Amino acid sequence: MTSEDQLIERVQKKFRASRSGLRVGIGDDAAVLRPGSGRAELVITTDAFLENVHFFRKIHAPEAAGYKALARATSDIAAMGARCRCFFLTLGLPESCSGTWLDHFLGGMARATRRFGLVLAGGDTTRYPLVVASLTVVGEVDPGKAVLRSGAKPGDLLCVSGRLGEAELGLRLVLKKRHRQKRWARLRRKHYYPEPRLALGEWLAARRYASAMIDTSDGLSTDLGHICEASGVGAAVWAAKVPAVRVPGELQRLGFNPLQLALHGGEDYELLFTVPKRVAHRLHHTVGGVPITVIGEMTRRKKVVLIEQEGSAVPLEPGGWDPFRGS
Amino acid sequence: MTSEDQLIERVQKKFRASRSGLRVGIGDDAAVLRPGSGRAELVITTDAFLENVHFFRKIHAPEAAGYKALARATSDIAAMGARCRCFFLTLGLPESCSGTWLDHFLGGMARATRRFGLVLAGGDTTRYPLVVASLTVVGEVDPGKAVLRSGAKPGDLLCVSGRLGEAELGLRLVLKKRHRQKRWARLRRKHYYPEPRLALGEWLAARRYASAMIDTSDGLSTDLGHICEASGVGAAVWAAKVPAVRVPGELQRLGFNPLQLALHGGEDYELLFTVPKRVAHRLHHTVGGVPITVIGEMTRRKKVVLIEQEGSAVPLEPGGWDPFRGS
Repeated sequence: MTSEDQLIERVQKKFRASRSGLRVGIGDDAAVLRPGSGRAELVITTDAFLENVHFFRKIHAPEAAGYKALARATSDIAAMGARCRCFFLTLGLPESCSGTWLDHFLGGMARATRRFGLVLAGGDTTRYPLVVASLTVVGEVDPGKAVLRSGAKPGDLLCVSGRLGEAELGLRLVLKKRHRQKRWARLRRKHYYPEPRLALGEWLAARRYASAMIDTSDGLSTDLGHICEASGVGAAVWAAKVPAVRVPGELQRLGFNPLQLALHGGEDYELLFTVPKRVAHRLHHTVGGVPITVIGEMTRRKKVVLIEQEGSAVPLEPGGWDPFRGS
Repeated sequence: MTSEDQLIERVQKKFRASRSGLRVGIGDDAAVLRPGSGRAELVITTDAFLENVHFFRKIHAPEAAGYKALARATSDIAAMGARCRCFFLTLGLPESCSGTWLDHFLGGMARATRRFGLVLAGGDTTRYPLVVASLTVVGEVDPGKAVLRSGAKPGDLLCVSGRLGEAELGLRLVLKKRHRQKRWARLRRKHYYPEPRLALGEWLAARRYASAMIDTSDGLSTDLGHICEASGVGAAVWAAKVPAVRVPGELQRLGFNPLQLALHGGEDYELLFTVPKRVAHRLHHTVGGVPITVIGEMTRRKKVVLIEQEGSAVPLEPGGWDPFRGS
């Protein structure tokens, strides 16, 4: 049987790292953070990661689960245009998971910390019948430079990073048990190892290019709705411009539609943002290797519409993930 | 069926409050906090609150569960000597709890926010078969004034606030179903509604009276061990001085021993702290109505011993709560 102290020691070992900016880290009642430079503002987000909702122990390797738990939460820091500082983990764990499974889970999470520039600052552990985790990630942004959902104006261009629908295709292949087929390995990668767009978020925020921003966690149709609602505007999405997942012909014949995956598929963790037209010419085609695509325009009319290839406009209803509606 | 947006709206309504110090609260990807005055340091803690571990839906009224979930986490802010700023809630919830139960749970939590001076800054909600919550509480402390576990020196006096063992007695009465007896109502109160000692913590930190501090969440014997280990010292606890819970004769005859409850009972959330002898005369007997008692002394020898009434010293082994060992 593992005691809580032994468990905390194991967690600490996995995350041994620089304590830059942390006056007190793990091991006291709370962590103490030094204020950032130049009166920087703190950006804080929390995210649940629960067995049988966000991952399945029978399907997801513990290494991938640990990585993804932190990547999902960190994506919200990217969506504010902030830099990473530290994170906290609360973890409920069955006794049967407190050996090798936990080592791999923490190993995946530690890999994510190195990628994202995060240090573990604290947390809480408990025995529980299911693996239930909650991640709190703390970032920092120069005063007034955080990019909110509420800043979009009619006429702003709508942009997205990367490709949409890749994570959803990956999830469906995993659930259909087609994932053991080696040739689809690349297609399931985005589902297992999403990449928070931290460098792009910071780049956009530092230059004040983005007027509004969100990460595509619930799917384009749902997340765009959040920007529109917060900003009091509408949007027109040009179907032909949406950078949709590349679906092999064989899978298309099985019913996998690239545009539908791109419009409603969740968990890509790309950045969806709006850019005033006057600065649009300064946007690069790629930032740090991540492509940026203009996919539409914000409108005064408070509706979200999809402009189809042949020019007709149809309503684009939120069709993404809602944990209370079921997927 | 409740959608996530409807749920978030209900949560927001319960916690409508001032946004002082929050540039962005609920409703964006993350919260944005203005830096505190005078380059204050941020104090952050996270705490899990899980059904069937930290509370039982059949035993605990939702109002008490909501209050206690936040009180437990906030106690860590008190134990650092910090002021409260804001908190975050991640919540997994069965569909059957998303009506009245949730209203009362949030109501209890909202009452706690008013008591502790906290505003809700963000969170995450998901449907789940069990009620699983995680609380992140953010506080603030003047630079270098946070009171750590590691500052105790041999010769420092050991002090504790309030009375110890009250919450444990309350818990046992609740579990023994004796709690419906009206005359024990007062005895179970501390189990349902613990009181983070925020004013006392701030008072001690501001004056630099406390050299080390922790809150008694796991029980005196366990929490004192944490101070000793972090500080590299030992302690002698004077049994006769420990302010133990007052147990009615009838319950004492049933086996409820006041000193045992006080030494090992968890969840009192009192402050356990050490004070250098040279400032001990400045300690008040009560701070804001909360009594302070000197119960022992820190020692060079790295053992924790209990000095019994007749003068003999016996080892005081950690006997408190450890979620991985079972209670």
